[in-house]
Amino acid sequence: MTTGTSTRLLALRNDISGREFFERMLRGELPPPPMVTLLGLRLVDVGDGRVVFAGTVNETLYNGLGVAHGGYAATMLDSAMSCAIATMLPAGRVFTTVELKVNFTRPLRTETGEVTCEGKVIHSGSRMATSEGRIVDRDGKLYAHGTTTCMVVSQ
Amino acid sequence: MTTGTSTRLLALRNDISGREFFERMLRGELPPPPMVTLLGLRLVDVGDGRVVFAGTVNETLYNGLGVAHGGYAATMLDSAMSCAIATMLPAGRVFTTVELKVNFTRPLRTETGEVTCEGKVIHSGSRMATSEGRIVDRDGKLYAHGTTTCMVVSQ
Amino acid sequence: MTTGTSTRLLALRNDISGREFFERMLRGELPPPPMVTLLGLRLVDVGDGRVVFAGTVNETLYNGLGVAHGGYAATMLDSAMSCAIATMLPAGRVFTTVELKVNFTRPLRTETGEVTCEGKVIHSGSRMATSEGRIVDRDGKLYAHGTTTCMVVSQ
Amino acid sequence: MTTGTSTRLLALRNDISGREFFERMLRGELPPPPMVTLLGLRLVDVGDGRVVFAGTVNETLYNGLGVAHGGYAATMLDSAMSCAIATMLPAGRVFTTVELKVNFTRPLRTETGEVTCEGKVIHSGSRMATSEGRIVDRDGKLYAHGTTTCMVVSQ
Repeated sequence: MTTGTSTRLLALRNDISGREFFERMLRGELPPPPMVTLLGLRLVDVGDGRVVFAGTVNETLYNGLGVAHGGYAATMLDSAMSCAIATMLPAGRVFTTVELKVNFTRPLRTETGEVTCEGKVIHSGSRMATSEGRIVDRDGKLYAHGTTTCMVVSQ
Repeated sequence: MTTGTSTRLLALRNDISGREFFERMLRGELPPPPMVTLLGLRLVDVGDGRVVFAGTVNETLYNGLGVAHGGYAATMLDSAMSCAIATMLPAGRVFTTVELKVNFTRPLRTETGEVTCEGKVIHSGSRMATSEGRIVDRDGKLYAHGTTTCMVVSQ
Repeated sequence: MTTGTSTRLLALRNDISGREFFERMLRGELPPPPMVTLLGLRLVDVGDGRVVFAGTVNETLYNGLGVAHGGYAATMLDSAMSCAIATMLPAGRVFTTVELKVNFTRPLRTETGEVTCEGKVIHSGSRMATSEGRIVDRDGKLYAHGTTTCMVVSQ
Repeated sequence: MTTGTSTRLLALRNDISGREFFERMLRGELPPPPMVTLLGLRLVDVGDGRVVFAGTVNETLYNGLGVAHGGYAATMLDSAMSCAIATMLPAGRVFTTVELKVNFTRPLRTETGEVTCEGKVIHSGSRMATSEGRIVDRDGKLYAHGTTTCMVVSQ
């Protein structure tokens, strides 16, 4: 994604809501964020105050301990939780992430297979919003969970 | 890095301390973690209870808002803060990250140039350890800061 | 509560589970923790992996800004979230709180009336456990939410 | 402190800076926040971007495990860290605490004696500010540390 593309996408948010924006991304009409692509994450569901990303760990995402780097779960949670907040915002209003908190409950490995991360809004205020997220495998086993705080601003 | 390499590196930690392990990595005698390489991060300094990583944002690390994804700073902080704890551990003792907290104070962009992230131990106990980290540019301007909690276990 | 009482209560946890312990406290057979009493908090429900505390803010709990001090919500959340974890522990196993994270979404005032704080376990592992909590008023309006990480140890 | 007093103190912040406000409190010219008094905490130092509170645990501040409740350290850290941010604010600008993160590294007991908690600003922006704090005893031993995020608003 060039800077031009990114500027054009941001400008689009002056005209359409956050929810509409992510629904277009889900339908493949808008490109996913580059970092999301780099880590092999995919947007798989969008709702009111919730989004779901999916991904499968491979060894390029490992740390030095033979499991997925904590930054992988952090990126997945940050994506899902901040997009969940964005789905509540009207045209012209965007978020900026203030802080992120992640708990790692089990190591993610290549054998884990596909995991999904649902982000859900907890509080949606006029200036601040918070959300939570969980990374689970197909059996519902929990690998990481987190919360985030975003500031809501006009573009 | 294949699973074989990663297993061999882990086994090495039965024989050498965490500090020696990261000093060898700094001298290029051991390969960096794959995720660290994927995001273009480099280990640039190792001390007692501290390590420093460096990196430069490019557009493959961007989110949909035209700045570096929060996961980039989270990965850099997680790397520096957990390795700082590892430098305090003797042969046979390793850490597992329990939780990670990141505050984002300024957006990281390609124009920011190289940033460094110093991780420093706050508390090093027999079962739990905590550390803190900051991402700054060449002028010392702060982009993100964080803390982490690790559990210390025998291999 | 004297040191003697506190030692006796701790010893009791060698013989009964965390859930039984808090059910006895709920029935008034065991005294509540002194700090909980100091802040006017009351244990009002106990389940598997969940407990509920209730309280009403008065002006002795205010900060200098004319609303309840952040420490009030932090204490209520810490109580509910750590006790929720304790309800999952067998006789002889107790928790020690590693870290606490609180988000403040609305100010608590005397006019708010009674609020309740439900703590619920997210992850209950052999060595570490996590839980979440929310403080809401009678209409379900959210004032604060949080998460905690506890280490589980043998007495 | 009556609601009248609290309203008058808040009004005063339209005329004097946060630093001047806390220096007057340090000199005993303004009353401390009620919750701070309830827990036996005292403001003992004020600087640019830093304040120090002191306190001594007694058994009314205990939890059910025979040590100080986590809410005690949380209140002390919240007080020191948010006041540190306030010392950076001009007349008419006040903070509201968005989130609080605390790590507990050692239990606080009556035998611990007096502890102090220094809060120090990390980042002071136009809309958001962050700070950190540590609770130590006379020997510098660390009992808890934390960070906070505050939103800065006009009165």
